[in-house]
Amino acid sequence: MKKLINDPANVLSESLLGVAAAHPELRVDHEHKVIFRADAPRPGKVGLVSGGGSGHEPLHGGFVGHGMLDAAACGEVFTSPVPDQITAATNGVDGGAGVLHIVKNYTGDVMNFEMAAEMAGATGGAEVVAVVTDDDVAVQDSLYTVGRRGVGVTVLVEKIAGAAAEAGRSLSDVAAVARRVNAEGRSMGLALTSCTVPAAGKPTFDLPADQIEVGIGIHGEPGRTRVPLAPAAELARMLVDPILDDLDFAGDGVLAFVNGMGGTPLIELYLMYHEVDRLLAKAGVSVARSLVGNYITSLDMAGCSVTLLKLDDEMLRLWDAPVRTPALRWGL
Amino acid sequence: MKKLINDPANVLSESLLGVAAAHPELRVDHEHKVIFRADAPRPGKVGLVSGGGSGHEPLHGGFVGHGMLDAAACGEVFTSPVPDQITAATNGVDGGAGVLHIVKNYTGDVMNFEMAAEMAGATGGAEVVAVVTDDDVAVQDSLYTVGRRGVGVTVLVEKIAGAAAEAGRSLSDVAAVARRVNAEGRSMGLALTSCTVPAAGKPTFDLPADQIEVGIGIHGEPGRTRVPLAPAAELARMLVDPILDDLDFAGDGVLAFVNGMGGTPLIELYLMYHEVDRLLAKAGVSVARSLVGNYITSLDMAGCSVTLLKLDDEMLRLWDAPVRTPALRWGL
Repeated sequence: MKKLINDPANVLSESLLGVAAAHPELRVDHEHKVIFRADAPRPGKVGLVSGGGSGHEPLHGGFVGHGMLDAAACGEVFTSPVPDQITAATNGVDGGAGVLHIVKNYTGDVMNFEMAAEMAGATGGAEVVAVVTDDDVAVQDSLYTVGRRGVGVTVLVEKIAGAAAEAGRSLSDVAAVARRVNAEGRSMGLALTSCTVPAAGKPTFDLPADQIEVGIGIHGEPGRTRVPLAPAAELARMLVDPILDDLDFAGDGVLAFVNGMGGTPLIELYLMYHEVDRLLAKAGVSVARSLVGNYITSLDMAGCSVTLLKLDDEMLRLWDAPVRTPALRWGL
Repeated sequence: MKKLINDPANVLSESLLGVAAAHPELRVDHEHKVIFRADAPRPGKVGLVSGGGSGHEPLHGGFVGHGMLDAAACGEVFTSPVPDQITAATNGVDGGAGVLHIVKNYTGDVMNFEMAAEMAGATGGAEVVAVVTDDDVAVQDSLYTVGRRGVGVTVLVEKIAGAAAEAGRSLSDVAAVARRVNAEGRSMGLALTSCTVPAAGKPTFDLPADQIEVGIGIHGEPGRTRVPLAPAAELARMLVDPILDDLDFAGDGVLAFVNGMGGTPLIELYLMYHEVDRLLAKAGVSVARSLVGNYITSLDMAGCSVTLLKLDDEMLRLWDAPVRTPALRWGL
């Protein structure tokens, strides 16, 4: 294992020291491993909290800031944050208007966010509503999930619901927007290589030199099938077809999001975006917005995922609203 | 070789189709493989052109836009753009106030930019001034370079000189700012793994599982030394010490830039940033601004580089000025 680390046990805590040093506009609670907006809690604003296992950076900590999350609870690599962490995040962003939990659908995450919501209600009194993302069309149940996994759409929920909260909308409104984004979004990914978890010291799974895993999870959990490596045009079809089969994307326009898994260079992601764009044009799906880059990753895994979101006018306006986070920023 | 590509010969041209599709605010000349601001040329504004071999994305195409470059000439992977490409870029951004070429110090790049400047002068009449970056302290001469290589500081030159040009400054002023940034910046990088050039189909160099290359070039060209893999704290020292030995960074404050080589996850880059930040504090160097992420890469190489830039008030103001490019954006 070749990594820029000291002790594998301290990767997260030391990385958070770097986040704190690099981003004076954030505040890091190192005890609880929570990244906050420096100005949290914001009185009268719905607080947005997400979190999950680390190793998917910039998700979630890189999306903390004006117009997105108020806090991110950072579990150890590929490990759900414990309820205490999430409770600290929740109480720390409670400005009196309630708190929205954005939770990727993994059994541990869902359970720990639920416990934290109860604890926060009991201790700080925050009203908490949770929205669970489950946009991955690859598998129905998986190694760590009952139901579909939450993946790429989580980034879009954080942006769009974050803009709604920033605009002063109520907790039920913000939750409704978040649910709509999840309902209208679908994703699927593939891996060219495994990732390597620092504490494990070796690749999570073996993938022969000529094979890829289609429908991969962001922790390296199995997907739909292993197939021989194929040209990008064919790989794009393996991701886009199941998404289009699952939901009718005809309408006003979609947000097309090609996401890198961490180890794939940008030149390849743009090449994939071209293939995705072509397939959408052929299917009569019009693209209103796009996003290309590493936003929800799986450590050093090579590969990518595609997420499509059916935009309505409100979502489009909220997507375009100003945002200022380490990983997504415009207008500010 | 596992890559998201079709034919290795078409990686750049197909990737540029993706850039064009994803970024309506840019205009791609597919014949010449040049990425322009959609509104180029801007009358009365100094045009900024950079370019070089591809495979370092987001450099340079990802830095085209308001407040940075007006055009980027994209050579094939790790191959200098030919003079025709650079001439097309130069003439396409000439708004009557002259054109600045920002050139990384590699023999092929310098030669081809020089030829293009002559051709542009002869054909379009643009006045061209070139600034060559040579910030890499690792080696004096290298495989492709007489003198030091141009690396991370190039990103900072493009941002800071770009802001000066956007502010309506003259060609000689903008060139002077660019030269000052290069003079006040130093970089050094290391590789944990080789990169793989698509057309070659195999790793550029062999690096044993327990060794790293210190002082690596962004094309995988040899650095200073191979040493056993070490903890991040020690690796940070191997990069920061030679930089501090080369230039006195005491003063108003530096911009500290930890750059990923492409295959290294963000969680490790922030961990490295913490180590760099600690070393700078110990050396009495104060950090005024920071940048952490993949900005000048070497395809899928795992590793990182450190760049320090001694900021003065003007550079700081220009760094903070609004920018809107695919890879660096704030205030717009």
